[in-house]
Amino acid sequence: MRPPASIPVPRRPGRPANQPGNDHRDRLLDAATALFARQGAAATSLTQIARAVELTPAMVHYYFRTRDQLLDAVVDERIGPLIERVTGPALDNGAEAQGAVEMIVGLARRMLQTAEQAPWFPPLWIREIVSDGGLLRERMLQRFALPRGQVIVTRIAAAQARGEINPALEPRMVFVSVLALTLLPLATASIWRRLPEPGHLDTDALARHVSALLTSGLGTPPTERDSS
Amino acid sequence: MRPPASIPVPRRPGRPANQPGNDHRDRLLDAATALFARQGAAATSLTQIARAVELTPAMVHYYFRTRDQLLDAVVDERIGPLIERVTGPALDNGAEAQGAVEMIVGLARRMLQTAEQAPWFPPLWIREIVSDGGLLRERMLQRFALPRGQVIVTRIAAAQARGEINPALEPRMVFVSVLALTLLPLATASIWRRLPEPGHLDTDALARHVSALLTSGLGTPPTERDSS
Repeated sequence: MRPPASIPVPRRPGRPANQPGNDHRDRLLDAATALFARQGAAATSLTQIARAVELTPAMVHYYFRTRDQLLDAVVDERIGPLIERVTGPALDNGAEAQGAVEMIVGLARRMLQTAEQAPWFPPLWIREIVSDGGLLRERMLQRFALPRGQVIVTRIAAAQARGEINPALEPRMVFVSVLALTLLPLATASIWRRLPEPGHLDTDALARHVSALLTSGLGTPPTERDSS
Repeated sequence: MRPPASIPVPRRPGRPANQPGNDHRDRLLDAATALFARQGAAATSLTQIARAVELTPAMVHYYFRTRDQLLDAVVDERIGPLIERVTGPALDNGAEAQGAVEMIVGLARRMLQTAEQAPWFPPLWIREIVSDGGLLRERMLQRFALPRGQVIVTRIAAAQARGEINPALEPRMVFVSVLALTLLPLATASIWRRLPEPGHLDTDALARHVSALLTSGLGTPPTERDSS
């Protein structure tokens, strides 16, 4: 495929690099991500993506070749770095030293902070990962969610064996509960803000709520702690 | 509109009654609900609904007249009774007597039990209520979620004032957290069952996990309880 006129050829197509041409590629990727979050990947045409940033559909084809490669790029270059910011500090070598409850509360806090900076993520997560038939689900699971989830689940089970985490909890469900408690409220903020209660409910308020619920909810109940 | 031949005219169109014709109406409503859950309401044609139960599109028109009336019927006659089973026991007059933590844990347990008997509900909830643009969202909010949510939020705030519930929690978010902790894991069961951990994870295991997390997570922390 020949590049459209006036677009410099990137040295490594499909890879970000600090070249002028990649500004177009980045803008197309941002537009695709935003449109997928707003209306779903299946309902988004390459023409719509190009139009959103005033480029031509030929440019989308040039930078991403196929629809599948565009979906790969959204997962690897937009969702991937976000997952790394959230889970990295919990999975680093030094992270073993921190308590398991702190590790999980930290995951929840970073998920909320990160999603506040990337407001497209919660709706994209609902549409394309949580919903059956979501076009990003399998990519997300294979590349990020299952491998990282496994490490976190193993660490939670070990913390239960040490008596750090309530043994009545299911290690797999702890990880799912953290995602549910953070991403679902963000994706539905426009709904629950209509519940009449005094006081503005922002992400900080949500972070305090989730931290309080998880800190008390995950720890070993006092009776079991006393008898150990 | 004239009824299709051989279908008895229901005395009150649009209302269920024990008449032979309502068997067709019920089957159409079940088929519509199942298809909306599986592929979304926007992607489901009246012809598909009719075909699913081997009836004609004319029957769908006869019983429901417009697409909006069909959506109303799904909300009022399929989702409504389910919401009543889940929230009714928490909102009854006698329910004030039970502790607030038990009230909330009871909501979570009944949500899990009810959704197990109506496996179409969690995916329908994700697609048509949680997702932006979901076609059942506004109907659900106006008829069930906001009025009932308000009563539950008020009750949680009162329980916090009495020292029964951790004051660090946000009353509005408690209600959202219960929905998140129950419906999201059910809607994504096919995903997290792939996390390798010994032991089958069924709805009972999920119920034990959620009860344990909420029972410890909602109660007033021991230090605050001691000093009161």
